Amino acid sequence: MTPPEQELEYLGDPETSPLRHPGSSHSPPHLGPSEQGRKQRGVGSPYLFIQLNELLGSPQNQEWRETGRWMLFEEKLDLQARRWSSPHVPTLSLSSVWELRALLTTGLVLLDCPVQSLSELTEQVTRVESLNPEVRERLKLVLLQRPQHHMQPMCWSAARRLGTSLCRGGHPTEMPSSAKEPALKEQLQSPLWQKLPPETEAAAVLVGELDFLTQRLGVFVHLSKPVVLGTLTEVPLPIRFVCIILGPPALGKGYHEMGRAAAVLLSDQLFRCSVCQASSPQDLVSAVDVFLEEVMVLPPGGGDLTERIPPSKCLSILHKRLPLQLQESKDSCNGNVNSKRDRHGYEHAPQAVSKELQRTGRLFGGLVQDIRRKAPWYLSDFLDALDVQSFSAILYIYLATITNAITFGGLLGDATDNIQGVLESFLGTAVAGSIFCFFAGQPLTILSSTGPVLVFERILFAFSRNHGLDYLPFRLWVGIWVAFFCLVLVATEASVLVRYFTRFTEEGFCALISLIFIYDAIGKMLSLTEAYPIYRPGLSEDTGFDPYGCLCYFPDTKGNMSLWKGQSPENKDAALRMVLGLANVSLLSPPECALQGGQPRGLGCHFVPDIAFFSLLLFFATFLCATILKNFKSSHFFPSKVRKVISDFSTVLAILLGCGLDASLGLSTPKLIVPSEFKPTHPGRRWLVPLFGANPWWLCLATALPALLMSILVFMDQQITAVILNRKEYQLQKGAGFHLDLFWVAMLMLMTSAFGLPWYVSTTVISLAHMDSLRRESETCVPGELPHFLGIREQRLTGLVVFILTGLSIFLAPGLKFIPMPVLYGIFFYMGMAALSSTQFSERVKLLLMPAKHQPDLLLLRHVPLSRIHLFTTVQLICLGLLWAVKSTAAAIVFPLMLLGLVGIRKALEWVFSPQELSWLDDPVREENEKKVQEEKSELIYQLRAPEINISVN
Amino acid sequence: MTPPEQELEYLGDPETSPLRHPGSSHSPPHLGPSEQGRKQRGVGSPYLFIQLNELLGSPQNQEWRETGRWMLFEEKLDLQARRWSSPHVPTLSLSSVWELRALLTTGLVLLDCPVQSLSELTEQVTRVESLNPEVRERLKLVLLQRPQHHMQPMCWSAARRLGTSLCRGGHPTEMPSSAKEPALKEQLQSPLWQKLPPETEAAAVLVGELDFLTQRLGVFVHLSKPVVLGTLTEVPLPIRFVCIILGPPALGKGYHEMGRAAAVLLSDQLFRCSVCQASSPQDLVSAVDVFLEEVMVLPPGGGDLTERIPPSKCLSILHKRLPLQLQESKDSCNGNVNSKRDRHGYEHAPQAVSKELQRTGRLFGGLVQDIRRKAPWYLSDFLDALDVQSFSAILYIYLATITNAITFGGLLGDATDNIQGVLESFLGTAVAGSIFCFFAGQPLTILSSTGPVLVFERILFAFSRNHGLDYLPFRLWVGIWVAFFCLVLVATEASVLVRYFTRFTEEGFCALISLIFIYDAIGKMLSLTEAYPIYRPGLSEDTGFDPYGCLCYFPDTKGNMSLWKGQSPENKDAALRMVLGLANVSLLSPPECALQGGQPRGLGCHFVPDIAFFSLLLFFATFLCATILKNFKSSHFFPSKVRKVISDFSTVLAILLGCGLDASLGLSTPKLIVPSEFKPTHPGRRWLVPLFGANPWWLCLATALPALLMSILVFMDQQITAVILNRKEYQLQKGAGFHLDLFWVAMLMLMTSAFGLPWYVSTTVISLAHMDSLRRESETCVPGELPHFLGIREQRLTGLVVFILTGLSIFLAPGLKFIPMPVLYGIFFYMGMAALSSTQFSERVKLLLMPAKHQPDLLLLRHVPLSRIHLFTTVQLICLGLLWAVKSTAAAIVFPLMLLGLVGIRKALEWVFSPQELSWLDDPVREENEKKVQEEKSELIYQLRAPEINISVN
Repeated sequence: MTPPEQELEYLGDPETSPLRHPGSSHSPPHLGPSEQGRKQRGVGSPYLFIQLNELLGSPQNQEWRETGRWMLFEEKLDLQARRWSSPHVPTLSLSSVWELRALLTTGLVLLDCPVQSLSELTEQVTRVESLNPEVRERLKLVLLQRPQHHMQPMCWSAARRLGTSLCRGGHPTEMPSSAKEPALKEQLQSPLWQKLPPETEAAAVLVGELDFLTQRLGVFVHLSKPVVLGTLTEVPLPIRFVCIILGPPALGKGYHEMGRAAAVLLSDQLFRCSVCQASSPQDLVSAVDVFLEEVMVLPPGGGDLTERIPPSKCLSILHKRLPLQLQESKDSCNGNVNSKRDRHGYEHAPQAVSKELQRTGRLFGGLVQDIRRKAPWYLSDFLDALDVQSFSAILYIYLATITNAITFGGLLGDATDNIQGVLESFLGTAVAGSIFCFFAGQPLTILSSTGPVLVFERILFAFSRNHGLDYLPFRLWVGIWVAFFCLVLVATEASVLVRYFTRFTEEGFCALISLIFIYDAIGKMLSLTEAYPIYRPGLSEDTGFDPYGCLCYFPDTKGNMSLWKGQSPENKDAALRMVLGLANVSLLSPPECALQGGQPRGLGCHFVPDIAFFSLLLFFATFLCATILKNFKSSHFFPSKVRKVISDFSTVLAILLGCGLDASLGLSTPKLIVPSEFKPTHPGRRWLVPLFGANPWWLCLATALPALLMSILVFMDQQITAVILNRKEYQLQKGAGFHLDLFWVAMLMLMTSAFGLPWYVSTTVISLAHMDSLRRESETCVPGELPHFLGIREQRLTGLVVFILTGLSIFLAPGLKFIPMPVLYGIFFYMGMAALSSTQFSERVKLLLMPAKHQPDLLLLRHVPLSRIHLFTTVQLICLGLLWAVKSTAAAIVFPLMLLGLVGIRKALEWVFSPQELSWLDDPVREENEKKVQEEKSELIYQLRAPEINISVN
Repeated sequence: MTPPEQELEYLGDPETSPLRHPGSSHSPPHLGPSEQGRKQRGVGSPYLFIQLNELLGSPQNQEWRETGRWMLFEEKLDLQARRWSSPHVPTLSLSSVWELRALLTTGLVLLDCPVQSLSELTEQVTRVESLNPEVRERLKLVLLQRPQHHMQPMCWSAARRLGTSLCRGGHPTEMPSSAKEPALKEQLQSPLWQKLPPETEAAAVLVGELDFLTQRLGVFVHLSKPVVLGTLTEVPLPIRFVCIILGPPALGKGYHEMGRAAAVLLSDQLFRCSVCQASSPQDLVSAVDVFLEEVMVLPPGGGDLTERIPPSKCLSILHKRLPLQLQESKDSCNGNVNSKRDRHGYEHAPQAVSKELQRTGRLFGGLVQDIRRKAPWYLSDFLDALDVQSFSAILYIYLATITNAITFGGLLGDATDNIQGVLESFLGTAVAGSIFCFFAGQPLTILSSTGPVLVFERILFAFSRNHGLDYLPFRLWVGIWVAFFCLVLVATEASVLVRYFTRFTEEGFCALISLIFIYDAIGKMLSLTEAYPIYRPGLSEDTGFDPYGCLCYFPDTKGNMSLWKGQSPENKDAALRMVLGLANVSLLSPPECALQGGQPRGLGCHFVPDIAFFSLLLFFATFLCATILKNFKSSHFFPSKVRKVISDFSTVLAILLGCGLDASLGLSTPKLIVPSEFKPTHPGRRWLVPLFGANPWWLCLATALPALLMSILVFMDQQITAVILNRKEYQLQKGAGFHLDLFWVAMLMLMTSAFGLPWYVSTTVISLAHMDSLRRESETCVPGELPHFLGIREQRLTGLVVFILTGLSIFLAPGLKFIPMPVLYGIFFYMGMAALSSTQFSERVKLLLMPAKHQPDLLLLRHVPLSRIHLFTTVQLICLGLLWAVKSTAAAIVFPLMLLGLVGIRKALEWVFSPQELSWLDDPVREENEKKVQEEKSELIYQLRAPEINISVN
């Protein structure tokens, strides 16, 4: 056995310092204690690390061991499992707090104590009158023992061995000074050390049973200047408070609980403030009383002590517990970035939206103001992007953008008989997006093809086809008119009307589009089973003939072909059934047969087997994969960063999976149509769309009507996104640009129409994802605490780079022809379902099916009678039904008008519902409501919900 | 306006009764107050309904309104939403309890007060010295006002109108007596009234602000005999306690919080006991102090007050809070069924398992003891079934049994080339099950085909096929030997060895079988794609020929057939590609072609398109449907009964869905093979299996070896089920019959072998489901409380009827031929997945993938170091790998021996792990462990977990 290692430092020269008895406090006599205290001491650091060290082991063999630690929450060392528990809200027994209070009343309280080392501290705290010198010396030895911290399982047994031999070996004087180094090294390697905020201070609570004590000893020390006291705590932080509770052996866990009570008291910032300002031990006891007045009490047995209350539900600790006059200093505690925020003019942020939405009364007044407001930021819009975070944002948004371009390009091609297609989608996204990023008012919004516009485009196409019009010139004129109307809206500052877009309107809009997505996806899949019919053995049994047979007939001999004409299918089958000994037939494949002048006959010539069911499988696999991967974020497997990446790229991964599955089987599923060269998808046109084409001249006037409807759609789509992005909780500094954005949307409308590219407006989901990837959050975080939201990195560069990359990807487009259409339909189905289920409306529809007993404890349900909620939901359902009916009839083209009608219906609802009910049912920013009750939760809610809201309305 | 309705009763003749001031108590002077108190008062009912009535409204227009109620948990009336909150654990502020305590110290305390009516009570409580007569009268009027209870939204507004006019109208004397009736009617219609236990008493807490009071008035009344006091409470219960807290208007919610504190105090049973035994107001204050000593404290801000703590986590209230001497009376509170339990000899139950597993040392000693033990119960085994609950149990278990018979019959037919099949499965289940139910030791176990035996049967079949043996006679001899070995095991009382079956063995067994299920299901599905190949266009493009073509060739002319012989497939295709002008071919379907002497040629003759992918769709649809419906129980939609039915019948519903999907498309998917008449599935045999058949005579000796292995399997399979069913927490009264059960399994093994029926042992899942459907639970339950488990309805009749019904279902068997095999494979896949995921082993495997931070807060993790858990899991994984390797090689037949080897490995692990670690990692009854910490939770755990454990090991 090696000689026990001990620390020399522990025996430093004890300085003589005034002995403090209960009732006396250390304060210079020439100044009133309270004034001086408040001035000199301040409120201390906002972060305090508290460690509980307990004397464990047999009486002969006791050692200090760390058994608990606190920052905001409690972490308990599970001794048997040798691991820290998850951070949880501590629960105390009231009696332990009372016992502690009693001990503090009679014990030694040293306030503003100027000790410099552990030995000095030991000297001070053992100078209690009631102790005889021998006990005092033994006590000192105990206090100077090096505590065993729980670092990691490997160190534990070694540390224990060390500790044991130390206790056996006798005097700590023999310890070589070199042993100090590894201890500090160990401290600095602690994972906690790397996470703690820089100005954190520490407190040590020491409790234990000593058989040579005859009565309890309670000491509370507040150090005037925090100092690092050796390895008293697991991390080498300067110690501000020390609390020692020692006593003769007793039954139960009394000392442990008192120690926990002391630690919990110290973890309360208000209590610490009181201690810092205390001038007498009596003030300390009063602080305990104040604490007790504000605790919450659970009845006996009401909560299980083994149940640990998770911290996620009580974020409010830090914020709630500060007295008003300290709020300001607390704000500065949050550090560097808050001050930066102030530099950017934090004060005007809460007012931002309302300011931007004030009418100037002048023509184009709003536009001019937008430009004036944004111009000063223009340079910083590029400089602010210079951060490594921008790279990951670019990668993420780039992938989202090309996924969107592929999907919408495919769908658009589908809807317009490939007059437009994927190539147009890529080109348009790249050009329009880049231009928008350069000049827009809110460069965080990402321009993209969106669902509503696609729906309207399909209606337009169906209309032009039905009336024999030349589509692209027709569309050009619609675009010209839309641009004109939008300019009129900009000139008249119509954007201030977005104030009337409530949650009712947003969700009606969102739900309708979602339903269209879902309906379309399913419809497309069903139409595949028509294109690739399913082989049914019933046919075969009836006719005794395999319907998949395909023969090649040559009509030039014997005129056998006449047999096929004008006869019913049953007869054809019968004819095929006859022995074909003399017929000129071959088993050539249909294309070859046609080449050689024959005619392919038989069901098998047109049908490809297996495709229908395989497409269905692809469809469901893609949908499920996207859904599961998206929800993977909330699972518990793998580190959270990995989960986040998987969740963020769920759509891309699902598409890749679908393509892989399809490629591995090599079936001829319907694929995305992409031109192999850089030319318009439709072979018969050039890039520039002719002004009239085959259309009559008066069409340039008549298109004003559909364009008016389309303008409503563009306005709503664009501005709803803008409103969501400019919500207060995102704390944007550089302001919005509603008018400026609409102006550029109009300009781009003109350009894309002229070149036959898809139409673009800002899209909610990708824009929110963009913002989310540019979130700045506080990094140093306390165990159990969530990172603070510090703002968004507002700039233009990420968006710009994304669109330039998209432009370069045009040359990848030919590779896209391997993407099966069922995979894209699956993604569409997923988008529709995700958007639908993210609305509060769908939550309320679910409530309709739930017995009141099983309903979740929503705040909404606490404040609005259930019958009123159901009434509101029913009104929404009826509106949705009406919208759907209009959309499905010949009047489909007026559906944007109906959407606008939602605003009117919402206004009419004010006659039915009280303002209080509507504030709960129909606040566009629900978080605002919840803030009223749980003010500090909004960040969490933002983090969990906001990116989900209105997902995939694009 | 009608005159205000008021209640006459409220003005009943006030009896003169002694005025009680603080400090005086109502007790006859001739007996010591405490003795008398304890004798006369007892501890009161265990159930107390507490209602908080508050004075709300403007000072001119105040009325009593119910705002909260308590039984075990708090329900708050959400005034705006007009609904009761969900039951939750109440949280109080400490100051409100202190304020209440202060008020009780100085207020009026009436103990053992003999009032008979509300008016009498009013008289009593207003006789406080400090009140002047005018105030006293006004106070009386206020207290006599009829309170407004929250019944349902409809009544609310009416009640409010009534209340308002009542307050305006002045004197309550004018109220017609008829008004009393509807009030009572309303009370009796309350849904709460129908749920409350019969002996429930009530307490009313009245709080409010009165502007004519100058100081606070606190009154606490304990009624000597509880009486119904009009409509003071929403349900017409006899009132035992009344607490009145009134005072001058004050800021904040002080009175409300004091009222809540009083209610929470009263909801504590220990506090009520103290009050019942109190003899002076000082005792009451002491009781508050005792309560305060035991409360749990959350630090300020630690819990959010708007957050309601759900009750599921704290079942322990009732149990924990009773002092020891009262436990007995509490037990009798639980009422009728507990006493019944005692009649059945509850006292011996906890000892049961160990008694049954004691070795007698005599040959067949255990069997004899089993018969002796079970015989006295035989009559009651039939009589005890006479309850309506038995009907639902029969329906449920019948469906589970025939689902099992169909699935296993199908799988068995598949595994043995239809030498056995569905018909054998039905017949065997019916006959063997009925016999077992008549004579078994534990008639709750359900005999069924199980996974391990099926696996072994498949190994046997493969062996006999490889060695050219006649399967059924070979199997007969195995059966004879198995029966013999089992009898030897019965004679030697080997069943006592089940003590060595730990969780390690159980889960190793379960995991292996689950994996076999999963592997088989996927393997079967993949083999379908061989039987029904997928059409790949690649072939077509290469050869220019549709491979699905099928032509019928007639070899009798021109000898064209010679062209086909001896050539490679490519040449055949090339030959087919040539113009067939002179060939004698037709497009007849393959069967017709064969009939007419032709030969079908071409890939299309053998392949049926679409089947492979459709089968995959069916497989996944069935699996997903079964999984989703099973988990539907934990969703929030529809009433819980509906959910339970859907969840219980998830497998049946999934099969029906699959069949419906298949039938609607009419594709020729592979179907279950069922004979159309009542005859053995294999056409070449009769029911009785010949002793030797084509096998050599010495086989009857050689079969002893596989039979030995099979015996191990049967023993383990049977006894693991028996051990699980006889676990203590199920509180079985009639004891187990390990030896008797094994004896009958041996007898039935003999019978089923002789008739070529499947082999049967007890199956865990269906047996547990059977027990679960026969659970007796307390019916009257307090809001938020879960029903108590009262025992199992132990009898033989339900099982018997189930098997008789199964026998009758044989005539339904022909209808089963519409069930597609992919659906059954899907169910198998589901069973495998469910069984695998229900093991603690799979939970531990998941831990391997989870970062420590995200691991759930399992008790296991608090007590065993993570590295040790991972080591244990790794050992299990290696064991599983070895078992799988053995199973997959030629040595497959010895795998039962390997399973037994698990017991040895487990024994060896005792050298590696400490007993404490093993007690956490490998206790067969994990619940036992959890009991150590959370004793009262076991019932909840039983309810949530037990039916899940080892699900589908059959």
